[in-house]
Amino acid sequence: MDHLRVGIFGATGAVGKELIAVLADRKFPVGTLRLFASERSEGKTVETPFGALTVENANGIDFSTLDLCLFAIGGGWTKEFAGKATAAGAYVIDNSSTFRYDPAVPLVIPEINADAIGSSLLIANPNCTTAIAILPLEVIRKRYGLKAVIISSYQAASGAGAEGMEELKVETRRFLDEGKSGHSVFAHPLPFNVIPQIDVFLENGYTKEEMKVVWETRKILGLPDLAVSSTCVRVPVLRAHSEAITVQTEKPVDIAELRALLGKAEMIEVKDDPATKTYPMPLYASGKYPVDVGRIRQNLVFGDHGVDFFVSGDQLLRGAALNAVLIAESLVATGKLKAGA
Amino acid sequence: MDHLRVGIFGATGAVGKELIAVLADRKFPVGTLRLFASERSEGKTVETPFGALTVENANGIDFSTLDLCLFAIGGGWTKEFAGKATAAGAYVIDNSSTFRYDPAVPLVIPEINADAIGSSLLIANPNCTTAIAILPLEVIRKRYGLKAVIISSYQAASGAGAEGMEELKVETRRFLDEGKSGHSVFAHPLPFNVIPQIDVFLENGYTKEEMKVVWETRKILGLPDLAVSSTCVRVPVLRAHSEAITVQTEKPVDIAELRALLGKAEMIEVKDDPATKTYPMPLYASGKYPVDVGRIRQNLVFGDHGVDFFVSGDQLLRGAALNAVLIAESLVATGKLKAGA
Repeated sequence: MDHLRVGIFGATGAVGKELIAVLADRKFPVGTLRLFASERSEGKTVETPFGALTVENANGIDFSTLDLCLFAIGGGWTKEFAGKATAAGAYVIDNSSTFRYDPAVPLVIPEINADAIGSSLLIANPNCTTAIAILPLEVIRKRYGLKAVIISSYQAASGAGAEGMEELKVETRRFLDEGKSGHSVFAHPLPFNVIPQIDVFLENGYTKEEMKVVWETRKILGLPDLAVSSTCVRVPVLRAHSEAITVQTEKPVDIAELRALLGKAEMIEVKDDPATKTYPMPLYASGKYPVDVGRIRQNLVFGDHGVDFFVSGDQLLRGAALNAVLIAESLVATGKLKAGA
Repeated sequence: MDHLRVGIFGATGAVGKELIAVLADRKFPVGTLRLFASERSEGKTVETPFGALTVENANGIDFSTLDLCLFAIGGGWTKEFAGKATAAGAYVIDNSSTFRYDPAVPLVIPEINADAIGSSLLIANPNCTTAIAILPLEVIRKRYGLKAVIISSYQAASGAGAEGMEELKVETRRFLDEGKSGHSVFAHPLPFNVIPQIDVFLENGYTKEEMKVVWETRKILGLPDLAVSSTCVRVPVLRAHSEAITVQTEKPVDIAELRALLGKAEMIEVKDDPATKTYPMPLYASGKYPVDVGRIRQNLVFGDHGVDFFVSGDQLLRGAALNAVLIAESLVATGKLKAGA
């Protein structure tokens, strides 16, 4: 087993913390772990399963001292450092949207399209909403074919980072005490509200978050013309996203057969028993690796060529940190990622 | 102007209280108002804009002393008393689902199908989720025709009555203080969660709430074969429901024209300006009569024969009390409802 030199960039954020935990939990072959963050956190000591580590400033580091860089920080920074890291021979798995739509950069859910990685040293990690929906969509695609996908999301505060989760808690208490909430992370108060805007608006009236779901679903499934539409809504939930998904299929769907196929799929748990009020819910999907899928039934518009289901998945895990570590695992398994390579 | 003898049944519940307020606010020609509730509330005094009133037990009352009965209470009780009231010549507007699917009973949104009332003394008030979606749907139907409707809802705690709202507040505080919530009104804890079940499950895998949306949309619009599908989800919001709605139309939709048509429609407010982050949200739709409609855009699956929009409306008002009073107003306006008739 290789003992890899791993760097986490954005290590003090919500996704960064989960990356540390998932690397340890999955027993990823970490030789040395280094944590990088903005100057604000430089010098801070973080207790990790890999020992107490001091947060470093990434500026000026020699990327040839790292085998794998896990990026969990956005903005222009990502673009600059990804180039330097790959030029030095390090693998970069980037959680931002910077490279996702670049045809030269693979966008990967390892259970679906690990093959897309090829010889690229830079790999993009998908948007959380896409990552949570796409495992069951791939099961449907394989057996029945996909004609159209319509998604309405119920997205957690964690999509806006640790600050988003904190604002939801603090402002919820304020609402209970004072009858109203403030906001700074979110565009409007989130407690006891839903906000039908995530990310900025684009020319076509969709938000960028909604178009990410469209673009990324097509790219990961290798279906560039797939009809996809979505409405992305922030709800007062802490860290798991949920989605109501309608699918129009190429072939007629046998609901019982589909339920069985989903039950056998990797990283999916079927929670679908009306008699016991069992279905996916974000409160119980938090902290879990698999996505929960339930409410599986024939769609009433598309008839036997349609299926509806509901999915809940941890935004910080399946939607970010877990997927990144699974990509890294596939790089190790295929012999691409080696110490000092 | 007639001065009508009005009785509210279930007067101490969440909808009952709103009925009293809306009758006063709309200056409905109330001569005498009587409040009825279960034995538990009998004898209680309620301060109302019509004076301090003592809650009566409905058992054994003489319905010929009332011109209009507003029913906001469910169960077998409704069936028994509706028969007695109409037999005595009183109008009954019933908020429960008891009669909604009876072909002999009109199900009415007055702005859309007041004509359906005909000579019936018994009129059903629609389900709240349907009532909030259907005003914009009717605008689309009139201009472009409807081929299919797909709805995902974000429903407030008030749908489960005053107890539901109270449980959400109490259990949210418990979650903040103790890290977990209890539940008794809802099937699962609602704080920081979403629950994809409202009402009981039916044989086809849909909940009764979801099928109410299907059945009632068809009945009110007079389109018995309209393709409708829905997913109904409870969210931690106090009293306004929201819905993400996808419509496939018969004719191509001009989005700017549709926005203008919605802007001119009765009881609709268009909240649709991405530049100022203006869109419907339940926090701001609470306590309002009109439903807020926004996020109006071409659906990416159905292209120019499809439109998506987001709607928020007060569950207790448009979804219940306001609609009932508007039905009563239309009975007065058409000369059907008169004092002592």
